[in-house]
Amino acid sequence: MNVHTLTIVGVGLIGGSIGLAARQRGVARRILGVGRQKSSLERAQSVGAIDEGLLDVNAAVHRAEIAVFCTPVERIAEQVRSAATGCSPGTLLTDAGSTKGAIMRDLEGRLPAGIAFVGSHPLAGSEKRGPDHADADLFEGRLVVVTPSLTTDPLALERTLAFWRALGARVRIMDAGEHDRALALTSHLPHLLASALAGILPPELHDLTATGFRDTTRVAAGDSSIWTGIFAQNRDAVLAALRRLDDRLAQFRCALETGDTTSLDTLLAQAKEIRDALGS
Amino acid sequence: MNVHTLTIVGVGLIGGSIGLAARQRGVARRILGVGRQKSSLERAQSVGAIDEGLLDVNAAVHRAEIAVFCTPVERIAEQVRSAATGCSPGTLLTDAGSTKGAIMRDLEGRLPAGIAFVGSHPLAGSEKRGPDHADADLFEGRLVVVTPSLTTDPLALERTLAFWRALGARVRIMDAGEHDRALALTSHLPHLLASALAGILPPELHDLTATGFRDTTRVAAGDSSIWTGIFAQNRDAVLAALRRLDDRLAQFRCALETGDTTSLDTLLAQAKEIRDALGS
Repeated sequence: MNVHTLTIVGVGLIGGSIGLAARQRGVARRILGVGRQKSSLERAQSVGAIDEGLLDVNAAVHRAEIAVFCTPVERIAEQVRSAATGCSPGTLLTDAGSTKGAIMRDLEGRLPAGIAFVGSHPLAGSEKRGPDHADADLFEGRLVVVTPSLTTDPLALERTLAFWRALGARVRIMDAGEHDRALALTSHLPHLLASALAGILPPELHDLTATGFRDTTRVAAGDSSIWTGIFAQNRDAVLAALRRLDDRLAQFRCALETGDTTSLDTLLAQAKEIRDALGS
Repeated sequence: MNVHTLTIVGVGLIGGSIGLAARQRGVARRILGVGRQKSSLERAQSVGAIDEGLLDVNAAVHRAEIAVFCTPVERIAEQVRSAATGCSPGTLLTDAGSTKGAIMRDLEGRLPAGIAFVGSHPLAGSEKRGPDHADADLFEGRLVVVTPSLTTDPLALERTLAFWRALGARVRIMDAGEHDRALALTSHLPHLLASALAGILPPELHDLTATGFRDTTRVAAGDSSIWTGIFAQNRDAVLAALRRLDDRLAQFRCALETGDTTSLDTLLAQAKEIRDALGS
């Protein structure tokens, strides 16, 4: 893959890592970054994630052969629609948003002929933010879920898959709704739980936490506005995932209340088996 | 501190780390380990955690100046009572159990004159097990909660504090019940949540988990029988902690159901602030 110009809208941890990975792997000849603040674009440029920083999304996207939107999920569809007008035919637009259904629905049938948007979600990241935490190997061996619609041009889909593979990722095609239901359980619910748990820790108990509390709540350090957007866009699936968790918590509560250590041990052993299978 | 003989009952991750730390810091001249299987005692000896392995708890404790019980919480009080008869006057018995109230109550007023038991809980450990994961620096800078009773000999308390400090730990004296209520929130509830979350992950979604799910559920890989014992001994405090969490989850659910993104952002931002204060 040899893209003449790759534009990255939002050069934080994910966008910056895309830039670093693309440069290191020779995926793009020129990498443009778009941000709202000159200072963060300068940081992204100084770490080598982009060649040039621009404040104007549309101008930067119009120069791109491929553009990746790494902005908060509630802004992606609007930015894509705005930028699509004026793109050269054949421009491929994709994203790195944690939700896919709302974005795909918003864009369906609303882009100019010859301009494709194919949704993407790299399952990589951390609670950290900004280009200073970008990592050229962030996508190495990680999964990127790609969510075409029924009307997606097969060639655009193929280019999207090739782009992420070129950054070192594995790819998997999923329906956007199926993605959102799955990620509600594997990502959004864990964040909600971590935040609920961190939120009830009184200051006087800070010193009585150890690695267990810290691991379990680590993702709660993520940016709240980013996650508010994700929860709002995937509300129904997150509520459904929360109901499944409630049912499981009720089983734990019942076993505790009745002193049923056999059931308690079974619940814990089932969880251990599943967690062991995931690896570290 | 220069103990002539330190006996460690249960030479797993914690017991093995006590042995390694005691050896490295010259805390004890001879270190005895007690286990139920010769093979694990041989492993503990080969990694340098103990000088000698014994299968007989009482015989090993009777030779000790200080003995530390690192066995599952539901076995500690019984083992201490059994071993205390036959100890030399002045022998100090302590433990590394994650619960303290039930153990302290069980032992109160039931030990021979001159034999002291002072409860301890090092806030260190991991989901891993066995002497192969033992670490001489496990207690370095970590907190050990020490829980004397109203009748604890002040000298025995002082020796217990000195012992853990000699292994590199910080120490804090707490009432056993206060310890259990605090740890229900900072350790036992996180384990319950991690297990509930891991337990509802269907196999087909394993590949759609990333670091968020893995961090949040890491402790669920801990040994189920160990944790069944902890939950059973601290049942009321764990149920109370679970009610606090339920209240918080209800706030998240309400914010999601009503589309109240302001409240959602506030809940997430409060959690972030607390989690940020804990450090990595």
